[in-house]
Amino acid sequence: MSSVTPITKNQQFDVDKIRQDFPLLNQNIKGKPLVYLDNAATTQKPQVVIDAISQYYANSNANVHRGAHSLSDHATELFEKARSNVQHFINAEYSHQIIWTKGTTEAINMIASGLAQSHLKPGDEIIISAMEHHANIVPWQVAAQRSGAKLVVAPINEKGELNFPVYKILLNERTAIVAMTHVSNTLGTINDVKEIVHCAKQVGAITVIDGAQAIGHDHVDMQDLDCDFYVFSGHKLFGPTGIGVLYGKEDRLEQLPPFQTGGEMIQTVTFQEATWNALPYKFEAGTPNIAGAIGLSAAIDYLSGIDRVGAAAHEQRLMNYCIELAQDMGDITRYGTAKNRMAIFSFLLGDAHPSDVGTLLNQQGIAVRTGHHCTMPLMNELGIPGTVRASFSLYNTQEEVAMLFAALTKAKTFL
Amino acid sequence: MSSVTPITKNQQFDVDKIRQDFPLLNQNIKGKPLVYLDNAATTQKPQVVIDAISQYYANSNANVHRGAHSLSDHATELFEKARSNVQHFINAEYSHQIIWTKGTTEAINMIASGLAQSHLKPGDEIIISAMEHHANIVPWQVAAQRSGAKLVVAPINEKGELNFPVYKILLNERTAIVAMTHVSNTLGTINDVKEIVHCAKQVGAITVIDGAQAIGHDHVDMQDLDCDFYVFSGHKLFGPTGIGVLYGKEDRLEQLPPFQTGGEMIQTVTFQEATWNALPYKFEAGTPNIAGAIGLSAAIDYLSGIDRVGAAAHEQRLMNYCIELAQDMGDITRYGTAKNRMAIFSFLLGDAHPSDVGTLLNQQGIAVRTGHHCTMPLMNELGIPGTVRASFSLYNTQEEVAMLFAALTKAKTFL
Repeated sequence: MSSVTPITKNQQFDVDKIRQDFPLLNQNIKGKPLVYLDNAATTQKPQVVIDAISQYYANSNANVHRGAHSLSDHATELFEKARSNVQHFINAEYSHQIIWTKGTTEAINMIASGLAQSHLKPGDEIIISAMEHHANIVPWQVAAQRSGAKLVVAPINEKGELNFPVYKILLNERTAIVAMTHVSNTLGTINDVKEIVHCAKQVGAITVIDGAQAIGHDHVDMQDLDCDFYVFSGHKLFGPTGIGVLYGKEDRLEQLPPFQTGGEMIQTVTFQEATWNALPYKFEAGTPNIAGAIGLSAAIDYLSGIDRVGAAAHEQRLMNYCIELAQDMGDITRYGTAKNRMAIFSFLLGDAHPSDVGTLLNQQGIAVRTGHHCTMPLMNELGIPGTVRASFSLYNTQEEVAMLFAALTKAKTFL
Repeated sequence: MSSVTPITKNQQFDVDKIRQDFPLLNQNIKGKPLVYLDNAATTQKPQVVIDAISQYYANSNANVHRGAHSLSDHATELFEKARSNVQHFINAEYSHQIIWTKGTTEAINMIASGLAQSHLKPGDEIIISAMEHHANIVPWQVAAQRSGAKLVVAPINEKGELNFPVYKILLNERTAIVAMTHVSNTLGTINDVKEIVHCAKQVGAITVIDGAQAIGHDHVDMQDLDCDFYVFSGHKLFGPTGIGVLYGKEDRLEQLPPFQTGGEMIQTVTFQEATWNALPYKFEAGTPNIAGAIGLSAAIDYLSGIDRVGAAAHEQRLMNYCIELAQDMGDITRYGTAKNRMAIFSFLLGDAHPSDVGTLLNQQGIAVRTGHHCTMPLMNELGIPGTVRASFSLYNTQEEVAMLFAALTKAKTFL
């Protein structure tokens, strides 16, 4: 491995210090130190997030927005402060543009289902890309079926980048919606979402960006990006499970019908009819995941306290190191070689089945994901059943990358 | 207060011991010990639930069902064990009849939206009762509008009990669905849901029972109750926010279309079409609230370790004591005097506005809810804008009931 560029000390983001904040990382799997490289599936949680949830339940738990008492007022304050925190984190104009959902999937379903009712008409076109996650494909298939609209797939090139010239040709006056991912969960491709949105606006299309994979790695700015909707999950942003965010432009949210009905989202009800509450509550039927929102807010506070630019650069260095080691090792086929790429390393080892590779890595303490990664149509296009995916986060180290390749070298002897 | 029956020691459920399990209860509000009587809105959490969530995040956090690694396998095991735990808790036949939702409201929306697509036709009737929560009214209004079905409201008597003779008359061959609450969140009425279900079955109607208020107070048995669907929330069962349960009969769940689409609920996807996964995953699109399910499971374990029959009897004694003190005090109008009733005490004090009473109680450390309790149509029928509601749980004490009435007596001097 002589060709490998060493990472010098002065380039280093202080990853050792960061790792101390994440209690889960300090454990053994099969008698070996855990190397957690499944961050695109879910990230680990810093202790401050775990503590925020515990403290909420131990000291402040109450239902929100219905308070005749101090405990409820306090819970409401924490809950709404969490919403403002998300607003500032993504630079949205107003806090009522932040809708709590249970995750990215629910958020896309809310938008797709609502637009199918309120916006789409027969003959309309919905453009997605060939690299979308199932959660950004199937809700649009259902919306298309319900409304008579047509799903159009913008192709990708051999590097796993959106084919921009073809995308531009596909855009036309029938294009009602463009729904694309910010970052591919399988290939790591960072899409130029600002340009995607800009082009879509030329034909008056509504833009929906799946930020699930982007949000944990880079700063996103709603006012700069100018999309109509942006969605992400808390659990991929070092926050709790069961909480996510739907950001929307105010007028788009006003026009979108509610997804679920019940308490909280109601203004008045008789047995004959009901009227809806104002934003953001119109979309928040039932008791929300209060602890989830507070935990996500703590994750955002945590990120605000670290060097995020340094963290992103650190992840890029890990990725580059990974590629160098892969070239050095040989017998590795990489999937996803886009110029702009998150630290997601999707590959096949020789002609080994990805799940066999995953099992052998697990025996050496290394946690990766194998399979189609909820992108079956992309796998069909690539002509493979799946990949092995090592996905990195800010707490991963150069040593862990080296351990991955040492383990792969060992795995080869068993295959 | 000489007329009050004292609770003798040997009748007592060991509430002092129970209270030690709930860290939140031990705090002051406005310089007074907190008296938490808002349990119908949300219950407090025992330390074991808080610890289960913390431990999950600190030791076992991973995404589920996609595992190529031990951490994911372990998280999946905990998550599916939580499902089996719920299954046994409500005596369901199979664990795949337990669908995770974000709460009662989502569960009812899933059923109503699905049945509007797959089952309801123009002219069909959906029977609800006059005591339903908005969450068991509005989703059915929407389902009726979409399908051309009609919403029919079964009346209640002056005690707040379902008018059974009229309910039976309303049932007919057009009755497609009967959706009723097990326990009224405003009046405390315990409905004879077994008989409601039995009658509905005579005309072939699908039965949906809202168990949100019942589940935290009494044993429910799906095989005995024999309803088609039963739904409840974790946060009212001493568990986390953002998690709930939809129980369904196997054939009903098979026939119900999915509510959301995306990852996890998919079997195969192409850009043209998708097929659905088996139960329960068909209804669980996206990364679920894993920590929420595990926390709810810990709450169920907690309840299994205490004397639930004793707890229910304790709550009834608190309620009886409350009624006696109310009679003794005078100037109290009670709402909900059903023969079978949970420990929910809804009332008005003289002609004072409920929110004024709530504010004065809060100043004395007593947390109650005031307003329409998400039952506006019921309030319209009662001809009042709202009530003051004190709702009890197993950790409340006789002393707290006495403190409520001492505070009400003091409040009267300000009104």
